[in-house]
Amino acid sequence: MPRSLNSLADLTADLREFARERDWEKFHDPKSLVLALTGEVGELAELFQWLPAENVELEFRDPRRKQRAAEEISDVLTYLLRLADVLDIDVEAAVRDKLADSRIRFAVDDVSGVAPVKE
Amino acid sequence: MPRSLNSLADLTADLREFARERDWEKFHDPKSLVLALTGEVGELAELFQWLPAENVELEFRDPRRKQRAAEEISDVLTYLLRLADVLDIDVEAAVRDKLADSRIRFAVDDVSGVAPVKE
Amino acid sequence: MPRSLNSLADLTADLREFARERDWEKFHDPKSLVLALTGEVGELAELFQWLPAENVELEFRDPRRKQRAAEEISDVLTYLLRLADVLDIDVEAAVRDKLADSRIRFAVDDVSGVAPVKE
Amino acid sequence: MPRSLNSLADLTADLREFARERDWEKFHDPKSLVLALTGEVGELAELFQWLPAENVELEFRDPRRKQRAAEEISDVLTYLLRLADVLDIDVEAAVRDKLADSRIRFAVDDVSGVAPVKE
Repeated sequence: MPRSLNSLADLTADLREFARERDWEKFHDPKSLVLALTGEVGELAELFQWLPAENVELEFRDPRRKQRAAEEISDVLTYLLRLADVLDIDVEAAVRDKLADSRIRFAVDDVSGVAPVKE
Repeated sequence: MPRSLNSLADLTADLREFARERDWEKFHDPKSLVLALTGEVGELAELFQWLPAENVELEFRDPRRKQRAAEEISDVLTYLLRLADVLDIDVEAAVRDKLADSRIRFAVDDVSGVAPVKE
Repeated sequence: MPRSLNSLADLTADLREFARERDWEKFHDPKSLVLALTGEVGELAELFQWLPAENVELEFRDPRRKQRAAEEISDVLTYLLRLADVLDIDVEAAVRDKLADSRIRFAVDDVSGVAPVKE
Repeated sequence: MPRSLNSLADLTADLREFARERDWEKFHDPKSLVLALTGEVGELAELFQWLPAENVELEFRDPRRKQRAAEEISDVLTYLLRLADVLDIDVEAAVRDKLADSRIRFAVDDVSGVAPVKE
């Protein structure tokens, strides 16, 4: 019976099961997972690197390019959720907290139209 | 009325709204978002870099470390979902397809206990 | 007596000495160094992320921005050379070989003005 | 007449010439170069990701693995030097300054055997 992948918790569980079935959990320590995440972010970056900035969104309407981006984004998400799982982090709660925090930290009237500067 | 953040689609919508309210959508072209993603992956990597590999999971039971990891994972997820959104990619569908694909590509009997090699 | 830092070999030796004096070599296994490298690339990426692509070179004529970029580039180079060193790789020879290779692989007449596509 | 690649300045000049001959300088704006750098760091990370941390240095005595690492390190260095070049940054001076700075900031007696914590 296929499960819904709608929630991050369900998806996290499916990815854990996928790893467990293949006896791959032993490879999934945090440092290795961050390296794998870095690898996938690198593949994502390569899709965009030489395109003129102003053309990118248009170029990615091409179904083949879009499909490639969708795959790389999936790979990044996969390792990110595996990392959260092995660290016993509830990503849904974390991202909800972070967003609530950002709504306070970046009040609309203070930051409208101004890029946040890294501290 | 607060919305659920349970699905990736809901979270994507909330992050878009957060950017729109602040007039930050103009900064969120794909190349810029991949650079921001790279920045957050870098912050995540820094949390782990000098810890002995065998101690990491134990060290991250410390609530403060765990909280830091949760925040950085949230930041990575935020830019990843913003990127998917501006490229009009349905992340839920993409990750479901990718996982179905991987179940075929990496058959349990073929890969059990063996790390996949990048092609 | 200060040494020249002109060659990559000299710089590599100085960075090794710096680590050795501080008893930091024990932290410099390859996986940790790649994570540290990722961290520094992330800090570099953050300097550019929200700037309009067409303004970046102009913005970085500002001495303070330029100084920040110089520091982050130095940090990336530092970990890259440390990694090469612990793997016993001669970076000068490697980059010379790679460039000779690229001169053949990307013949001027074939690729003029066309961005190379990742295979 | 082949030039020495011994200094970073010579290597920087050779890489600029390589790009100019192919009319590739137009692709080498800073944001694109950082994305290309990210791509190469990702390829480097993939070489190490699933190896047990304690075995990496031994595994990389294998000439084929070592050669792969040498190539990826060269690619990272290439884009790093291209980036410094387009930003008009003297990498040799920058890294010399940074190292002098670090010698003061991390006094041997203060940090011996203790990994620096990111601030």
